[in-house]
Parts: sequence; structure tokens; C-alpha cells
Amino acid sequence: MKIQGILTPNIVPFHEDRSINEGELRRYVSWLIDKGVNGIYPNGSTGEFIRLSFEERKQIVSIITDEAAGRVPILAGAAEANIDMVLEACAYCADFGCTAVSVTGPYYFNVSQESIEHYFRELAERSPIDILLYNIPQFSNEIGVDIVQRLAMDCPRIIGIKDSSRDMPRFMNTLGKIKPQRPDFICLTGTEETLLPTLLMGGDGGTIATSGVAPEAVMKLYRDWQRGDLEEAKRVQFKMLELIETMFAAGNFPEGFREGVNLRGFNAGRARQPMATTEMKHFLNIRSKLACLLADCGFDEAAAHCESESCGQVDFSASVAGVGQLDVETIVREVFGRLNSGS
Amino acid sequence: MKIQGILTPNIVPFHEDRSINEGELRRYVSWLIDKGVNGIYPNGSTGEFIRLSFEERKQIVSIITDEAAGRVPILAGAAEANIDMVLEACAYCADFGCTAVSVTGPYYFNVSQESIEHYFRELAERSPIDILLYNIPQFSNEIGVDIVQRLAMDCPRIIGIKDSSRDMPRFMNTLGKIKPQRPDFICLTGTEETLLPTLLMGGDGGTIATSGVAPEAVMKLYRDWQRGDLEEAKRVQFKMLELIETMFAAGNFPEGFREGVNLRGFNAGRARQPMATTEMKHFLNIRSKLACLLADCGFDEAAAHCESESCGQVDFSASVAGVGQLDVETIVREVFGRLNSGS
Amino acid sequence: MKIQGILTPNIVPFHEDRSINEGELRRYVSWLIDKGVNGIYPNGSTGEFIRLSFEERKQIVSIITDEAAGRVPILAGAAEANIDMVLEACAYCADFGCTAVSVTGPYYFNVSQESIEHYFRELAERSPIDILLYNIPQFSNEIGVDIVQRLAMDCPRIIGIKDSSRDMPRFMNTLGKIKPQRPDFICLTGTEETLLPTLLMGGDGGTIATSGVAPEAVMKLYRDWQRGDLEEAKRVQFKMLELIETMFAAGNFPEGFREGVNLRGFNAGRARQPMATTEMKHFLNIRSKLACLLADCGFDEAAAHCESESCGQVDFSASVAGVGQLDVETIVREVFGRLNSGS
Amino acid sequence: MKIQGILTPNIVPFHEDRSINEGELRRYVSWLIDKGVNGIYPNGSTGEFIRLSFEERKQIVSIITDEAAGRVPILAGAAEANIDMVLEACAYCADFGCTAVSVTGPYYFNVSQESIEHYFRELAERSPIDILLYNIPQFSNEIGVDIVQRLAMDCPRIIGIKDSSRDMPRFMNTLGKIKPQRPDFICLTGTEETLLPTLLMGGDGGTIATSGVAPEAVMKLYRDWQRGDLEEAKRVQFKMLELIETMFAAGNFPEGFREGVNLRGFNAGRARQPMATTEMKHFLNIRSKLACLLADCGFDEAAAHCESESCGQVDFSASVAGVGQLDVETIVREVFGRLNSGS
Repeated sequence: MKIQGILTPNIVPFHEDRSINEGELRRYVSWLIDKGVNGIYPNGSTGEFIRLSFEERKQIVSIITDEAAGRVPILAGAAEANIDMVLEACAYCADFGCTAVSVTGPYYFNVSQESIEHYFRELAERSPIDILLYNIPQFSNEIGVDIVQRLAMDCPRIIGIKDSSRDMPRFMNTLGKIKPQRPDFICLTGTEETLLPTLLMGGDGGTIATSGVAPEAVMKLYRDWQRGDLEEAKRVQFKMLELIETMFAAGNFPEGFREGVNLRGFNAGRARQPMATTEMKHFLNIRSKLACLLADCGFDEAAAHCESESCGQVDFSASVAGVGQLDVETIVREVFGRLNSGS
Repeated sequence: MKIQGILTPNIVPFHEDRSINEGELRRYVSWLIDKGVNGIYPNGSTGEFIRLSFEERKQIVSIITDEAAGRVPILAGAAEANIDMVLEACAYCADFGCTAVSVTGPYYFNVSQESIEHYFRELAERSPIDILLYNIPQFSNEIGVDIVQRLAMDCPRIIGIKDSSRDMPRFMNTLGKIKPQRPDFICLTGTEETLLPTLLMGGDGGTIATSGVAPEAVMKLYRDWQRGDLEEAKRVQFKMLELIETMFAAGNFPEGFREGVNLRGFNAGRARQPMATTEMKHFLNIRSKLACLLADCGFDEAAAHCESESCGQVDFSASVAGVGQLDVETIVREVFGRLNSGS
Repeated sequence: MKIQGILTPNIVPFHEDRSINEGELRRYVSWLIDKGVNGIYPNGSTGEFIRLSFEERKQIVSIITDEAAGRVPILAGAAEANIDMVLEACAYCADFGCTAVSVTGPYYFNVSQESIEHYFRELAERSPIDILLYNIPQFSNEIGVDIVQRLAMDCPRIIGIKDSSRDMPRFMNTLGKIKPQRPDFICLTGTEETLLPTLLMGGDGGTIATSGVAPEAVMKLYRDWQRGDLEEAKRVQFKMLELIETMFAAGNFPEGFREGVNLRGFNAGRARQPMATTEMKHFLNIRSKLACLLADCGFDEAAAHCESESCGQVDFSASVAGVGQLDVETIVREVFGRLNSGS
Repeated sequence: MKIQGILTPNIVPFHEDRSINEGELRRYVSWLIDKGVNGIYPNGSTGEFIRLSFEERKQIVSIITDEAAGRVPILAGAAEANIDMVLEACAYCADFGCTAVSVTGPYYFNVSQESIEHYFRELAERSPIDILLYNIPQFSNEIGVDIVQRLAMDCPRIIGIKDSSRDMPRFMNTLGKIKPQRPDFICLTGTEETLLPTLLMGGDGGTIATSGVAPEAVMKLYRDWQRGDLEEAKRVQFKMLELIETMFAAGNFPEGFREGVNLRGFNAGRARQPMATTEMKHFLNIRSKLACLLADCGFDEAAAHCESESCGQVDFSASVAGVGQLDVETIVREVFGRLNSGS
């Protein structure tokens, strides 16, 4: 099981009483796998790991690994309050059969870069499971590129990085400094708006929250890119931008993404962070716009919630007209082959 | 039991294996109370609450309330991952006999100001114990002054604010907007460098990490201010600045403060966030400087670790020469009284 | 002429065609001096120095020094695009008879702390006039406290600092590190909300934009503090907070302060940075509130623009009822004297 | 003359006395044009516009337009202290024959988004020359994407944006919101590290400071991209990263870039912002590394300053082996054409 391509950072459906809705979580995960995503990423920021208890995080990994049943790799968030608890989380993730864990830099306090490096070296030495660094400086201490480079060179347990910094120059520098020396180091982006550029430059994929709402679209972009059809991949990437912006605009993250999941026919329930009633009107407006955008993508179940009449439909699952680049190359090779052989 | 004056945000002593050292914690808390601090503040940032498990935070409150045994009020940090867990923490704090709890704005994620207000209103309604807002925008979402003002007016359960923003204009605005309408609203500062200015402008005291290392000095400043001896209070405040700067310079917060406690004769042990060996040399330099500063304050137990020969000693516990302001006013009133009565 | 107390950073009145209105500038400056301010501070941020040409800045210093005619010291902003132009500005300020100039750290580009120190050392060596450092990290590179300390020890030409960082812990550290070694080093605050606390802690005054709108109030605060009447000074400081907040809320700085000047009976005209028509409604609301606040301070000329009926009036120029602290001390000394002399 | 491809933001060579070295500036500009850059961009951040006087900026545009003599388009920075001076700069740029000007959002002060929009609308109405918005939020007020979109729709005079924000998601959103409705709107990047990704996603080129030091490399990347040779363009982009990082690491921007120009055989002189002697050792180390990198690119004139013996050489000007994408498509079309025609 290799971590590569599009991994979905799943939201967690809750019951009315804010407890985890296991049934709906199972249904949702299986739906994602059926739609073709390349992996599931529980207990990331989208999964509100910080608002769950340690036991709840463990429960979620247990449910998702059980439901996935080896169909796709599971990359589980294992950021905890201190290094011993991180290692405890690593242990249960290994036991449940995850492929790897991701660990953020320490959060809340500012911590020196030296201490951060020391922290990951200790983790790498003691962890029973492979680790991806998780760089998200908006919320936790940044892991400098030089540290990533040194860890990549020295620690076999650290197999990659998931970078959600929204900092594309940094992503370029990460690729440029590490890939030539350790080509198998996995570089995932967490920035939805630049998924395609990172793939084109040598990235290995991403943890893309939008793939939890519109997996058909994101997987189409990924497959278009794989086939070398840059123009079609670009079309989908640009189309995704409005969807992404709308979900971010819905209020506290990840509420827009949760609502997107609801609009796809799930019962994701209310969030752990309660919203003020004064924010509801704005939220409902965004919801309607989101429904139109999803209906416009051909997702019929969302159409009922779109109040705009002009809402057309584009089918992302439709096969692409014309000849993609890979096919062209195949043809050229054949033609050259024939020419060379004198036929 | 009223929350007022100097509350010490205690560090947590750890054993070699990073578990809580209960014996040393008890000895430390009793020492602080003997030194005259006006309260203890467990599970704040200084107490590294974020690096403890829920059960450990509960254990710490249990130990400290038991050890304090009603001698001083206990204000306990009750920030948790979600609102239900905060309420669970409020419940045990009430059960253990704390006077109040402090709760930060939600951390990690960015949350809208409306949601933050909504969050505290729900807490205020359901909490079994009084609440102080804890504003620390360096680490968690800022609680805007307008929200503080509205919560102060509407919620009897919210009895004050502890502001560690280092933003004195903000502190002034908080005082100016709330005290005229709710004079009992407790305004504590968490900014050590401006303790005296905030007292002079109407603040009610502070949670001062330095009081965990040099309680004699901080309590002297506080009593000087109470007696109206501005000049002597200023002298101590300015003298404290170098101590504060040195402890902040020691590395990851709160390591400098932990080392200060060690230098006062305790065995506070190693931190939960491991330090890199490359940082140790810097740390040991700072430790020596800190020892000199503490020896210079008359704390003999620290002198052994000061490598400078020029280290003199100033006794903060010495009684102040001259007549303080309160005495002057008493005398004046008496004199006027006698003059008026014709004697 | 010593720089001390309250210096007014004057706004610049403009004609309809955005050229400098010399007549109104002269009338305004003389009015400020008549109201008792301790100095004028042209070409600061409030004076929009960055939106003027080099020739216009020179013209403003020429007008103001001529109008002031030695009645109060003039501290002129001399921040220019490069060090040679700063020195050219220093030269004309010296020629026109300014007491000193203030110079910000380099702006626009990020510049290293070493280069900033080097820059001020070169200025200090070559300037024909005394210099105050101007720290305003919101808009230009911060001048670190350690650099300020070294410059203060080494450079006689650098006679002080004007700190508009809004960072009171920093101001405390500046006082604590420099005053014991160079007591004549002038420490001015530019943060209106904390004028009184900085005075109480040993500051020398401030460049206070509010003193350009309500000089009576700010000078009353300053004199109350001089007389030792802390309670009355506090009352004025807290009353000023709403005025300050309102002027900052008016839109782009310094439009609220310009409008305050208009409400005091001047024709300050339109700003150099045009405002959008969509912003006007908000601006007019703020203007009405500002008029009420000023009328409430007893400034009759503003009352006409206040639309609220509840607007009362408090006369800041009224003598203070009761006995101030200095008087108490005088009495006590007298009483003690008599007691000691046996009378 | 169309603005497109790689424009070089030139540094300004200075004499010993910090005055503009016209001769060297002319020689440098002609060298750049000979190397094939698609335009020159005077008075940008790289050209230290903020450290020049108004007259000096005018002089530079005069020199460069005269030297270029219509061989390439000139895009001149026209950011000035106020709107009237910006318009004056626009006028002389038009007179000297520039193709367009670029204007930053107002700098120093924070200005509302409404005022920024208003400001550009007034400029667009009154300017005698086409305008590119210049977004550089590190140094001046950000111009929000929604404002860019509205200005693009409403103002024919505003023909594009140069975005130096280093924010690739923002660049994607700009492309996605504007190009479908106004395909001729020029979107240039100023972020060297992501030049290729922006080209791949639909950008029109960039103002790339590295092209002032290694124009051969940057132009090769651009031509590789034009020819559809993604692999070779990627190789150059990744190779450029170390060069870029080294020049940024040299100290205050743009000193590293100035030194690069010196290493290519020019006499660019000392900077307007003096460097501290303590910074010199670091600078000289960086200079040696930079020399090696440039020598490694095949620029012999730099080799003398490289102290490393391992310095090899890669010739960026070498023609690319193999068949590029465009050629493949041509061949395929021909083959298909023949097949279809039955030959």
C-alpha cells in the first residue's frame, strides 16, 4: 500500500448530542472509496482532531481502518499533546493497520526549530509506524525546509511530508532539495487551489478536503493529469476554485466542507464548535450557492437545495473528448517505429 | 475567597519519566503560599496544560486544592478540546473547591468572533463555577473587547478576564469600558513587565509567572503599591524586568521559569517538550545569569549556581524607609479631624 | 528649549486642489500653542509625511518654525528615501531653528537590525541637529531595544526615542535599560491610550495626536499628573479613550483626527488619500459621534454637528474640586513641621 | 509592443558617491536586451525606487527608454507618494515612450480596500498610459482579488497585474476569475520560484529579478516552456531555486541580486542602504557561493570569484536534446493528415 495520489481528509459526522455517528462515518468512508479516492486521512484538521478526545481519535481510526478493510491505504493524524501520547497514538495506528501517520509540529506554544528537529528525531527512532511530517504553520509551529531535508536524509521512518502551508515557493524548495537525493520521499500538498501545479512540478498528490465533497471532480483532475491531459486537468482545477472558495467562506473551518458532505446525501450533523445564530443567515446563503455549484457538477442530490434556476449541469464523469497526450505519444512512438522499420 | 492580587501560575514538576512529581508539586505550592502569594493558578500556559492529558489536568487540580486547603483561592485553567469537555473540567474544578476557572478562546483553528461569543455564552449558562475569560491571542483566538464587554454585562457567571495579550492599550480599553458599569469585574494582567502600570490604572492584579520564582519580589511590589509607595514599587518593577527577560530568553517557554524554580531549591525536573542538545549550552549560560540575578535579590540558595563574582545582594524583604501614601492620608485625615473639631 | 511633555503631531490642512493651506496651518499651529501644548511635531505619520513631496515637507517646517517663532520647541520628522536625503532634511531643519528631528527606521523594504544600527550611527555622526529615533514597526522597520540602548550610550546626537509601537512592555524595557545610565535620554510615547501609564513609569511625555483635537484635555491630564493628582489624571485618560477609538474608527488614518480638527473650527480640507464614496456614510456617522464627544468635553464649536440630544458637557478646563496629592503632602509637611516645632 | 514573457526588474548601478551610474546602467540594459529578455522593468522594488528621489526615478526611465530604443517594451514603476505625483510619473513615462506603468497599492499607512479601489479608479480615469496593478503586500497595502476583478472589468486603462505576493493560490484565483471574461488581462508573477507553475496554469510571464543576473537561464526556461518541453523547463526551474535562495540570503534585498550583476561583469557599485561591517563576512561568503553557482551555469566571468574547486559547469545555452512537445504535435498532425489523405 503506497501513499500517493488523492487522500481524503474526512470530516466526522456527529449525532445531535455531539457524539460520533459511527454508522454515517462508515457509510461515508465506503462511498469515498467507491468513488475512487486513493486513501483516507482521518484525524487531520478537516477531521477536527483537536476537538476530539484521545479516545475518540482512537475510535475513529478503528472504525475507518475496519471499514476500509485494506481497500485503500489509511494515513492517520497522530498529533497529540506530548511525545509519549504521540507514540501511544502511533502504536494504535500500527495495530489497526494504518499505512502511516502524520504528525504536526508542536502547537499552541512557540517552540524553537532545534527542539522541533529533536522532537521528530525522537519520534522517528521510537515509532512503530512510518511518519509523514505535517506542516501547517497557520495552526502549529512551522517545520523549516532545512529540518525537513535533514530528517529526510537521516530518518528512514520519516517517509514524507504533507504541506498545508499554502506556500508554493516552499513546496518547490522542498521538492528541489529532497527529491534528487531521496526520490521516494512523499511530498503531498494540502492546498486545494494548487493541486495541479504541485502535481506538474513533481508532487505526489495531496490531502484534498474537496475530495470529500466532490471526489468525482478531484479524481478526474488527478486522472487527467496522469493521462497527460493538461488542458482538461486545468479546466477542472479552475472549476474547483469557486467550490473551494465557497466552502471556506461558509464560516469556521471545516463547516463549509461538512455542509458539502451533507449536500451529497449524508447526515454529517452539527459541528463540535457551535455557531452563533447570527451567523446562520450567512451560512444558509453559502449553502444554497454550494448546492448550485454541486448541482452544476452533475451531483443531482444537491440540486434540490439550489435556489437558482440558472443552475446547469456539467458531468465531470464524462469521458474526455479528443486524444490525450499519452495517447499521442503512443501513436508517435508507433509511427516512428514503423518509419524506422521502413514499413 | 476573592480573586485579587498576585496569583501564581505554577509550573508542574516532573519525574525523570515525565510523569507528574506530586510530592514536589505539593512542597512547591505550600512554599508559594507561605511566601504570601494571593492565589494559585494551575493549568495555565505556564503549567503547560496543553501538554498534559485530561486526566493529568484533573489530577493537578486535585493535588493543588488539597495542598492549599483553603488558604488561598485557586483559579484553575479549564480550556479543553471542546465545550463538553470544558464543562466536565468546570465540574471537577467546582467539586475540588476551586474559586473559579479560566477559559481561553478556542485554539488551533481560527474561529469567528460571533462563534467565540456564542461559545462563552453557552459556557456561562451551563457552568457550575465562576469563569474568567483568558485572552492570549499569541496561542488561541483573541476575545475582542466588545465581546468581553457584552459578556460582562449579560453573564453573572463570567466574573472577570485574565489578559495575557501584552497589549496595554487593550487593557486600558477593557478597564474603561467595563469597570464603570460593572466595578466588580476582575481585570487581571498576565504581562509581567506591566504589572505595576496596570495596578496603577485600576487593574485587580495579575497571574505573574515570575511570582513562581521570586514571590518575595512580586509580593513586595504589590504591597508597595497597596501602601501607595510608587517609587519603591517602580524600583522593584524595573528590577524585575531583567529577571523576566532572562527567563523568557532561556528557550522554549516555560523552561526559563522552570529553571528559576529549580534554582530556588526545588526539583522541577525535565520538561515535557524535549530540548535539543545543541540548545543546552545557551540554556546553561542563561541559567548562570538567572542564578546571579536571583542571588542578587537575596535568594541564597541560587548563589551557588552564579559564576559571577560581582554578584551583590539586595534584600527585597527589607522594610521600606519613610512614610507611605496610605499613612500620609490617615495622618492628614486625623489632623483635619482634629482641626475641625477645634482641638 | 527642551523636548518634554505633550508635543502635537499636527495634521496638514489642504486646499480643494490638495495643495497645502498655509494660512490655516499657521492659524492652527498658533491655536495649539495658545492652548499650551509643549511643542509641535510636523512631518510625522499624523502629518502624512509620506504623501508629501520633499519640497512640501521643507515648506511645512518653514511655515511652522516661523509661526511658532520660538514659543515652543519644534521636533520635525526627517525620514526620507535615503540617508543623503535624510541629512539634507536635517540640514534645513537645523537652519529653520528646529530643536531636533525624528527619524524612522528605513521603510518599505525589510532591513537587518545590523544595517539599521549602522544607518543611525552614520546619521548621528553627520547630522547637524539632534535626533530622536522614531520606532513605528507598523509602518517601518522596528528599531530593536538593544540597538536603541547602544545608540544611546555611544551617540550624543541621538537624544531620545519616540515610540509609537503600542508595545508597553517594550517601553518599560527601554526605560529600564537606558534611563539608569543616561537619564537625559528622552522617552516619548506615541500611544495615546497609555500616555498616563508611561508618564507614571518615568516617560518624558508623548507625541499625542489627540492633543491636536482636544489640547485642553490632554494638557489637563499632563498637568494633573505633574501636580500628582493621579485620580483626576486617570479620569481624563479614561475619558480620552472613547475619543481616541472614535477617531481611529473613522477610516484611513489620520482622517478621524483631521475631522476632529475641522470640528474645532478649522478648515482642514480633504485628505491626500481620497476616500471612496461608499465609505462616506460610515465617516459621517463617526463624525457625528465625534462631535458629541467633543461637545461633551465643553468644546462648543463642535456641538452644532452633534445630532444626539443627550450630549451633556464636562469642562476640562475647570479647576479640579478637592485637594490633590501634592497639596496633601504640603499640608502634611506643614503639620509635621508644626508638631516637631512643638506648636 | 506587448507586455509578455520575462521582464527584467533592473537594479540601478551607483557611483561611489551613491549617484546613478548612467554609463553602466546603459551597458547593463543593452546586455539584457541582447540576452533576449522580453522587456525591462525600471523603478520596481529591485530597482530600489523607494530610495530614489522623484527626479532620479524620472532620469532612470529616460535613460532606459533611450537605451532600449524600442527594441523591447518598457514597463515602468510609477508608485509615488500621492495620486497627483503618480499621475505626473504616468505623464513622463508616456512621454518617454514606455509601454505601460505599474502602480503599487498605497504604502506605509494601512488603507481600506474601498479606498484602494477608489484610488485605482481615479488613476485609471486620468492616466495617459496603460497601468498594471502591482500587488506586493509584504511592503504595501494588498489589492484584494475582488478589487482586481472589478477593475479589470470596468477599466480599459488597467491592462493587467504584476503579483509579487508569493501567494500561488491567490494567483490561481486571479486567473480563474478574470481570464474567462477578459483573456487579454496580463497576469505576471513576481515570484521567481513559481515562474514555471504560473506559466503552466495560464500566466503571461513574470518580472523575474533572477533574469537580471542569469538571463540565459530564465530565457531558456521560458523558451523550453513555449516549446512544450516541460521536463527541461522543470530542470532549469529547480536549478534556479538555489540561485534565488542564495541571492535572497545575501542580506538586505536587493543586495544579493546587485552582487550577481557585479559577478556577471558589471560595476553596479554600493547600495543606497549602507550595510554594517559586521554583515560583510556573511556577505562575502554568500558572494563566493553565488559565484560558484553562476560559474556552474557556464558564466565564465563569475568563475574567478568562486573559491570551490568542485565547481563544474552546465551550459544553459546548449540546445536541448530530443524532440519537444510542439514538434511531436506537428509530426502527429502531419502523420494523421497523411493517413487521412490515404497516402
